[in-house]
Formats: sequence, C-alpha cells, structure tokens
Amino acid sequence: MAAPKKGSMTVNPDLAKERSRASFDVEQLTYALYFGKGMTERKRYLENLAINDPVIKGCKPWAFCSREEKYEMALKKHLHIAKKIKEHGLEQDWDKFFYTEAAACHENSPIGLHDTMFLPTLRKQASEEQKEKFLPLAENMTIIGTYAQTELGHGTFIRGLETTATYDPQTDEFVLHSPTLTSMKYWPGNLGKTVNYCIIMAQLYTKGKCHGIHTFLLPLRDLQTHESLPGIELGDIGPKFGYGTNDNGYLRLNNVRIPRDNMLMRYSKVLKDGTYVKPPNARLSYGSMTLVRAVIVGDASRGLSQACTIAIRYSAVRRQTEISPGGPEAQIIDYQTQQHKLFPMLATAYALHFTGQIVYGTYLQVTSQIEEGNLDQIGELHALSSGLKAFASWECTKGIEECRMACGGHGYSHASGLPKIYVDLTPGCTYEGENTVMMLQTARYLMKCFAQVERGEKLPGFVSYLSTNLSTKSSMTSDVTLDCLVNAYEHRAARMIQTAALRIKNLVSEGQSQQEAWNNTTQQLVWASRAHCHTYVVKTFVSMLSGGTVEGPVLNVLTSLCKLYAVYGVIQHMGEFIQDGYLSTTQVDMVMNKLMNLLKEIRPDAVALVDAFDYPDAMLGSCLGRYDGNVYQALYEYAKSSPLNQKDVLDSYHKYLKPMRGEFNKNDMSVVSKL
Amino acid sequence: MAAPKKGSMTVNPDLAKERSRASFDVEQLTYALYFGKGMTERKRYLENLAINDPVIKGCKPWAFCSREEKYEMALKKHLHIAKKIKEHGLEQDWDKFFYTEAAACHENSPIGLHDTMFLPTLRKQASEEQKEKFLPLAENMTIIGTYAQTELGHGTFIRGLETTATYDPQTDEFVLHSPTLTSMKYWPGNLGKTVNYCIIMAQLYTKGKCHGIHTFLLPLRDLQTHESLPGIELGDIGPKFGYGTNDNGYLRLNNVRIPRDNMLMRYSKVLKDGTYVKPPNARLSYGSMTLVRAVIVGDASRGLSQACTIAIRYSAVRRQTEISPGGPEAQIIDYQTQQHKLFPMLATAYALHFTGQIVYGTYLQVTSQIEEGNLDQIGELHALSSGLKAFASWECTKGIEECRMACGGHGYSHASGLPKIYVDLTPGCTYEGENTVMMLQTARYLMKCFAQVERGEKLPGFVSYLSTNLSTKSSMTSDVTLDCLVNAYEHRAARMIQTAALRIKNLVSEGQSQQEAWNNTTQQLVWASRAHCHTYVVKTFVSMLSGGTVEGPVLNVLTSLCKLYAVYGVIQHMGEFIQDGYLSTTQVDMVMNKLMNLLKEIRPDAVALVDAFDYPDAMLGSCLGRYDGNVYQALYEYAKSSPLNQKDVLDSYHKYLKPMRGEFNKNDMSVVSKL
Repeated sequence: MAAPKKGSMTVNPDLAKERSRASFDVEQLTYALYFGKGMTERKRYLENLAINDPVIKGCKPWAFCSREEKYEMALKKHLHIAKKIKEHGLEQDWDKFFYTEAAACHENSPIGLHDTMFLPTLRKQASEEQKEKFLPLAENMTIIGTYAQTELGHGTFIRGLETTATYDPQTDEFVLHSPTLTSMKYWPGNLGKTVNYCIIMAQLYTKGKCHGIHTFLLPLRDLQTHESLPGIELGDIGPKFGYGTNDNGYLRLNNVRIPRDNMLMRYSKVLKDGTYVKPPNARLSYGSMTLVRAVIVGDASRGLSQACTIAIRYSAVRRQTEISPGGPEAQIIDYQTQQHKLFPMLATAYALHFTGQIVYGTYLQVTSQIEEGNLDQIGELHALSSGLKAFASWECTKGIEECRMACGGHGYSHASGLPKIYVDLTPGCTYEGENTVMMLQTARYLMKCFAQVERGEKLPGFVSYLSTNLSTKSSMTSDVTLDCLVNAYEHRAARMIQTAALRIKNLVSEGQSQQEAWNNTTQQLVWASRAHCHTYVVKTFVSMLSGGTVEGPVLNVLTSLCKLYAVYGVIQHMGEFIQDGYLSTTQVDMVMNKLMNLLKEIRPDAVALVDAFDYPDAMLGSCLGRYDGNVYQALYEYAKSSPLNQKDVLDSYHKYLKPMRGEFNKNDMSVVSKL
Repeated sequence: MAAPKKGSMTVNPDLAKERSRASFDVEQLTYALYFGKGMTERKRYLENLAINDPVIKGCKPWAFCSREEKYEMALKKHLHIAKKIKEHGLEQDWDKFFYTEAAACHENSPIGLHDTMFLPTLRKQASEEQKEKFLPLAENMTIIGTYAQTELGHGTFIRGLETTATYDPQTDEFVLHSPTLTSMKYWPGNLGKTVNYCIIMAQLYTKGKCHGIHTFLLPLRDLQTHESLPGIELGDIGPKFGYGTNDNGYLRLNNVRIPRDNMLMRYSKVLKDGTYVKPPNARLSYGSMTLVRAVIVGDASRGLSQACTIAIRYSAVRRQTEISPGGPEAQIIDYQTQQHKLFPMLATAYALHFTGQIVYGTYLQVTSQIEEGNLDQIGELHALSSGLKAFASWECTKGIEECRMACGGHGYSHASGLPKIYVDLTPGCTYEGENTVMMLQTARYLMKCFAQVERGEKLPGFVSYLSTNLSTKSSMTSDVTLDCLVNAYEHRAARMIQTAALRIKNLVSEGQSQQEAWNNTTQQLVWASRAHCHTYVVKTFVSMLSGGTVEGPVLNVLTSLCKLYAVYGVIQHMGEFIQDGYLSTTQVDMVMNKLMNLLKEIRPDAVALVDAFDYPDAMLGSCLGRYDGNVYQALYEYAKSSPLNQKDVLDSYHKYLKPMRGEFNKNDMSVVSKL
C-alpha cells in the first residue's frame, strides 16, 4: 500500500472509513489490472518521473489556457516528453504510454501523429531504399510528419477520397492536386502548424488510368524556415469541442510535384515509364487503422475508469439530504439512484479494461501472423476490432457523461476534470471509422457466419455461439448465475443476428435486391452487432475470473462486478432478452432484484475498486476526485486561481458596465448614499 | 415563404430538391409553432432587428474568444441588448425572449439573473415599503443583482444551506456569515464580477432560535467604485464546460451587517425586538424556481430543434458511400441508420415544443390562481414541472449529442455550432433541482395518487389514467393507431407506478420503515416517474393534433411525427411495455415495422420539418446547418479565420519546435537539401 499519491495530507474521514472497510487488498487488484507487481511498480515509477518533472509541472494549467495557449503549452510539453523519453531510454510501448499519459493526460499531442501514424506507416509501407533514405530523418525529427487521409467532404468511406496523384513520366514526378473544394484535406492532426511532412492518401493516376488510393510522402513546409511550400495552402481548422492542444489542419494542393520515389512502394509500385505494379494482397495496407481501433478500446476504458474514480470518491465525500428525516445528511453514495448511476459504469470500466487487453493482444498476435504471410485471421480481427471500437467508445463516452452528471453542479466545472475527459474521448466514436459504419462492418461478418451456420459449417470460437438452439428457454433461477447470464447474452445475440438475417432474406424474396434489403435492415444489423459485442465483453470478463490471475477476496469482488455488468445489461436491454420469451417475467423480476442487491453488495467496496485503478491525483486533475477527499478546499483554491480573479474590478466594468449604468440611471448617483 | 434568411445565395441543389418535394406548406407549420401568423412575423421582425444590429454583429465570434474575452464580449453584448430592449420598447416576455435569443444564442448572460431572478424575487417577496425603496434602483440598474442560493457543499437540498443571518436587536441589523468552508456561496450566476447586490438565502436566527431559510438583500460591491465591500470575499469560480460568458461566482461572508429592513418581509417578518412572524403559507416562496423549471422544458426543446435543424440539413447535403455498388455516393439522410438517429429526435423536439408551451401556460394559470389566494393546484404544478423539467432536459441534451455525433467529424468542430448548444443546455439537468431528485418529487406525488386510487378517490386529469385496469391487454393491430399507442403508454406508466408502490408496501411489510422502503425503491420510482412524464408528452402531442390549430397536409405530417415519437419510445423501452405481456411479441413486431416505415414516410419532409422551426442562420451559428447548404465553403472560411492562422509560422515554432529539432538532429541540417 505504498502508492506515491497517498501522501501526508489528512484524508477526509468518510473516505478513510470507506478504505478501511474494503473486503479486499487494493494492491492485489492493481497488480491484476497491470500485469503483476513488477509492471505496476514500473508504471508508478514512470508516472512519478513524469509528474515531478519541473518542466511538466511548470506548464500553465489546461483549463486556464486560451485555445492558442493550449496549443503552445502542449507543443512545449510534448516536445519535452519526447526528449525525456529519449533521455530516460524508454523504448517499450507501455513505458512510453505510462510516461506520456501521466505527463499530459487528455492533452492530445500536437506532435503525436508522427509516432503513431507517420513512422509506423513509413516502416510498413516504404520500400527498403525508401526506409533507408527517410527513416533516419524522421526518427531524429528533422522530418516531422502526420497522416493526411480525411478530406473536407470525405471521411470513413476511403474510396471516395478525391485528392489526385498523377504520374508524369516526362519528369519522373507525381503531381498532387486538390481538384475540388471537398477534396481539401481537413482534420488530420498536427497538420495545421506543426508538421513539415505528411503521408498523404490520394487516387493514383498513371497512363490515364486510376488505380485507387495510394500513399505518398509529401513535404509541406521548408525544413529550415518552416514556411509552407509553394502550391501548398494549409492551416489550423479552428476551435473545436476539445482537442484545443492539437492543430488539426486543412491542406489544399495546387499541382504540387514530388519525385516518383515519394510514393510508398513496398507493396504497389509505379515504374519509371508509368507502368503500375499491383500489390500482392490489397488488405496489407490497412494495418495502422486496425491498431488504432484496438487501442481505442483500452483508451476509452481508461477514460471511463478515471471518470468513475472521480465520481465515486466524490460521492463518498459529498453529503446531501437527510436519508431519514431529522438525521444527518447522507453520503450520496448511499442513495440507490446514485449507486445505479455509478456502479454499473464502474463494472463497465473493468469489463472494457480486460476487453481492451484481449483485443490488443489479439492484434499483436494476428499482426505477427500477417508478417509471416498468414492472412487467415484478418477477417476475424477486423470484425472484432471494428465492433468493439464502436461498442467501447459509445459505452465509455456515455458513461463519462453519466459520471459527470452524477457529480451535480461541480461536475460541470473544469475543476472536476470530467469535461476534459469527455471532450478528449468522444471523437473516438467518429475517427478511425464512424461507429455506425464500424458496427455494420462487424454485422457483415456476422451475416457471413450466420450463412455458414445454415450450411452446417464450423465457426471461429468467438462466434461459435451462433449455432446454439434458439428454441430453448433460460434456466435462470433466483441466484442468477454467471452461466445463465452468459447463455442469455448468447441467446439474445444469436436471435438478433438471426432476425436481421431473416429480414434480409424476406425482403429479397419480396423482390428487393440484396443491396436494398441490406439497406432496409441496417438499423437491426447495428442492434445485432451491438448485442454480439456486448456478449463478447461479458464473456471476456467471465473468462478473466477463471483465468487464474486473481483469487480470494479479489476474485469475489470482481465476480460481483462481473455479475453487475451482466445483470445491468439485461435490465437496460430487457426487451431484447424477453421479446421471444427466452426469459420469463418471473426471471426478469429475479434479475431486477439481483441488480438492486448487487448495488448493495458492491457499495462497501466501491472506493477501493476505483483506488485499484491507481491513478495519481496529478493525472486526474480533479478537485472532486482527489485521493485525500479534500474536495471543498480544492474547489475554493481552483476558484481563487481563476484568471478572471486577477483583479477585483475588471477593465470591462469601466469599459461597459459603468457607462451603461449611467445611461440607465440618469439620476444623480448620490441616491445610492441612501442605501 | 419570405423568411429573411432565404437570401439571394445559390442554394445547394440537394437541399433545394428536398424543399421542392415537401408534402406541406412550411409557413403554415411555422405559424402553428409560434401562435399564428402575427406572432411569427413579430418574431422575425425582432430576430432581424437583433441580428442586423451593428454592435451585435461586430462582436468577436464566441468560438474564437478566450474565456476572459467570452465574458467581456457577453457583457458588452448583453448590456447592449438591455439598452436596445428599452429603446425599442420591448415589454412583452416573448418580445424580449426572441430579441435576446437571436442576439446572443446560447451565450449565457452575465447580467441575466438580474431580470430572471433578482427582480422577480424582489417583486414577489419584498414588502410594499421595500419595493418602493429598492425596485426603482434595481429597475434602472443602479443596483444589479443576482440570486445566491447554492453553496459549495449544498445544492438541491435547500434546507441544508449553512449561511447564517443572525439578528442583532442592539443595532437593528442582521449579521450575515459563512460559518464553514462549505457554506460559501458557489455557482450563483453573475456573482463573481458583475453584480453589486444579491438576494441571498440564509438560515435566519433570532432570539437564539433558527427559523429556517429566508431571503435577504445584500450589497456586495461599492456602487461607485464597484470594489468589493469589507467582509465580502468574492470572485469568479473559474472555467467550466460551457457558460464561459457567465461569471458564476463564489462569496464568503465574514460577519457582514445589513439593516433589518434588508430581509425580504412580504411573508415572514422579524420585528425590531427580534420577534419572528411566520408566513401565512410556507409554499408561497418557491414561485421563481417553478417558473424556471417550466421555462427549461421550452429551452431544452429549442436546443434540440436547433440541433436537428443543423444535423438534418447537413445530412441532406452530405454524401457518403455508394448506396449500391458503383453508384454515386448517397445523401446520408437516405441511410436507415441516419434516419433512425435523427427523425426520432426531430419528433422529440416537436413533442417537447408543444409540451413546453402547455407547461408554461399551466404555470401562468396556476400563478394567477395563487395570486388570488387559491393554492389548490400548487401540488399538481410542482409535480408536473419537476418531472417534465427532468424529462425534457435529459431527453434533449441526449438528443443534441446524438445530432452532433450524426454529423461525423465536423460535428465535433465549433464550426458545427453543436457543442455550443450542448454545453449551454446540459446544466439544465442539474440546476433548479437535480433531475433525479426532481423525478423523485414527481414520484412522491404519483405515490400519493396511487394511494388515492386504492381508496377509490378521484384524481386530477393528468393522472386519472392511474385507475385503468391493468389486466387488459393491448388491442394493437398492424396499423398501430395513436389510440392504441396512448393506451400502451398509460398502461406502462400505471403498471410501473403500481410496481413501485407494491415494492414499498412489501418492504414495509418485511419490517422496513417507510423511509427505508422508499430509499430501497428510488430507482424504480425514477423509472415510474419517467414513464409518467413520457406518457404526458405523448398525450400532449396527440391532443395538439386534435386541437384544431392545424389541418390538411400539416396535420398529416405532424400525425406521422407524433406516431414516430410514440413508436420510437415503445421500441426504446420495449421491456417496460412487454414485461407483463401487455403487448405481445407479434404486436412488438408490428410496432417495429411501423417504426421502420415511419422513417421512410418522414424522409421526404425532414428538411421542411426543420425549416419550419424558422431559425435564422445567424442564430444557429453553424457551417453545417446553413439554410443554403453551402457547407464546405463555410467550413473552409471558418478554418481560414481561425486565430491560429494569423501567421504561417507561429512564434511557438521558433520557441519550442526549432530548438528541439536541432537537439534531435545533431547532424548538419544541410542533409535536408538532399530531399
């Protein structure tokens, strides 16, 4: 129990009491969340290193910065982080992640795409000669780059991109051009002001023929002066809901010429004479996006667990309304409605934490298979990462807002830290594939699987439940076991997938084309896909319990949490579970009772369960979520430090209010002496 | 068809086509929304007056302001609005509303509480002598005030407030004091920097006894210098999710003395010797809050209808993905999933628009009864306004985010106008009574009604459905009539209210106290309350249809919309409708089919339905929601005008990026000449 944040301050007695009565050892659960004691200690070491760095500490607080200052502050911070990562010799992904997260939590990086998209794409899609030439310059940041895909009029549907790259054999160059207003690149991170290069996606034309989307390396700014190059019009796209630290940019190209060698040629090629050489497999180029989708699951769950940490600690400190007349005001965490808001979100955060780890692991595994030329599992990985990206980002962003609203008025202040988490994570519902489209991609896979079931073929493990018998009813009894819950989730998902498939079949038999029938079923397909993902998450949580990494009291509390996750989902989507009579009315009542009982069961462990996520105060950046619970003093300090309080009487009083009051009050102001 | 916004610009052909094929005359529907042609024209006149005012026009755009600039810009704007309202002689509430809304849409006023809370409370709660003394000064803005209720540690539970007002008969004064950190006033709007007076709620002590919460008139700043007065510590509470234009403040009092006459004494009194005189009826003082709750319903619906206007127009302009392979990219409004996101929100906006008007009307009616001494309907009004405030603010803020996400990436930019609407309206879920608490207050009323039903007593109209026979089943057929839908909503709400009541009864019979049983049922009570409000909204929409204000094609389209609202709610909460078998599986399938068919039915009228809300472009402040549909040009202009684009190369490049690149790249930068 030696986490650094647990300093010498006096802890709010309500919080101290919560901790003293937890049923399990928080430290053991933290180890289970972060792959053991060694990794947890490493995490803490890195977080402390970041938090206590004087440059990081000295940056103006995010909430007090203007948009322009947010960008400048983040540039300073993230460049410093990059330098320190080198100095400290941090090379593992997890090391970099923990260091960066602690140093700039939810302050999106203005140089981040260089590491997450630019370099990986270079490494994966450049030829050996290209790597030799460009990688050293990119690695030492002579070249700072981003990944320019999205256009003003084109997002998730990549084939619709309009930017052109036309090969000119006369000069051995490509001519890059924005032929329309809507073809302008718009949204790529770091593009507006920071980077001097980008990898750009464009329609490749050679010998008068279009060969579809390819990637090119495009210089944007002079490497010495940083001025934008001729033919290049670019800038920041302006203030957004969040991401003020990031100069998401626009880029309009006016016949910009680059050498032929600037097309990334590991897979496709254009020869000197303009001959196009096809890639061996078209699916090879989509790796980076799948990685980001896998990462979004984990990121979303961390945002939610941070929000839960803030809201649950605050709910233990905050007292409001006599719970019985004349009594003292109760901790709001003792209200059933507050428990019903927060504990299911806590359970969701745990469920998606474990799911994120599994998806990331699957990504690594399938990627290494791909590197060895085995593409068998690409479809599965794609179906898994698309749907779960959508499911996790939707559930978590909804959950973060739920947590914010559960903090009452103070949740609305940036002092809570909650709006910052929300605006940082909600774009995850849109980027790297809009969620509804992602769900439909998973649905397409599920429809294929359903057809396989009908043909009696065997399915991969994570969809094998599709072949269960849909005519059976639940054997749920009042103890509401995990087995019965898993069966219920499988039944519901299988039934909804079948319903969608049958609807398509019916519409086709009524004379619609396959495409029309699909289009007229998309909403049901989205629901079916969501039910499938939900089932996957429930099952992942359940198998974590039996995985042997936890035991004793930790296993007990996680089992309650897992049940809560499953039971809450049944009540939330009750119609989907009972529509065909799989669960009876009596069984629904049992589940409902179980839900209310589980809230009570988890109540004494709620604070310990958020403590286990082990977020240092400096990362949460929240007056409400402080480990010591000294919420009100912190809110007071926050208010006092507001930039608007630099002066008692603001200039705007003299400029606007005073003259106007004179205007309203033509009388002599001496009247006021009477008051 | 002469709305001012429909200027000479070329309208996007997709949008023009949408408008040409609408089934009804938009203008007729607009009249139905705004109490007829006369009122609509008045509205347009006032909106134009505001929008074309050069001072208003000249203000720096909200999205480009820092927090400090937001406050200053809003102060300038709202003082100008106040001046113009006087100059134009606008005295009707609606006149002021339309003028102000158009001039500063979703830019919360730093002087707004003066009109909405300070003056009304003075008028309602001050004695005649007090009014004579203070009202003229307040009306000419010599005194600018706010209403200071919420404390750092105390919100919705007003009895828990800690600020004290202790009468000192020696000096004929009250001593106002903040005895604890948590008793500090925190959150009152306009308190930090703008006002010089406030009405403050405090626990009244006289002759050693506490008489509960009373209101006092407290000077905060010197009327000449605007400096804060001795014993008064106050300031802005710092940056928030939204409301940057408002200086929500904190206030700490150190034994501040005010004359006895500064207690508002219309109802309660303290005599010179310290004798306390009780008010004739304790409920008289809560009028202002009920008004604001009634207003929130309308405000929330306007926010949602604005969001729908933006998202639906954009969805008609935005094309993405071939709807059939090889074909042109489709308008995204043609996708079923997009329709399913937006059209139910459009239906909700209409439903709550009409509900807001009814609730406001009821408020006016009951208030005039109260003024005449008739308090019979206070309970009903309270139950109605509490629950509907919660229902409307929850549904609309959720809906606004749904609309934002339906606009893909661009929805996240402030260029969309959507985040501004959201952050302005989401506080409505918390202030004037936290939504869950509000739902429980309505539930308390419903439990009383249920007991009356059991005793065979007659109920007021809006809850009379509680006496319906719960054993009947729905007679719904495939045409899914409004009658059958209303019956279904009544059945569901009545059943859920009964279930909650029976659970309380059972828990009591198991030995729990009434209070414990209530506390262990609150989540079900919230659900029951929500079902009741939902029913009220459905019925309000249905009776609007038969109210005679609309006919012909307008009636037809509103009937479809009303059905969609009802049908969508059934599918969303399917479990609650089928749990007891009221609707059969077959009937649910009918409702589901109806939902999908209604989406198609509304599709051709969707743009016309948002046009009918008649929001000028300047109010929407959205590149995506423009009447002319020239979305992409507007986004490009927005980007170009971003303050970060004042210079091609920012100072931060020289300050941070350039030196750091040197550090990474120890080699001679001449290497770059090779590129």
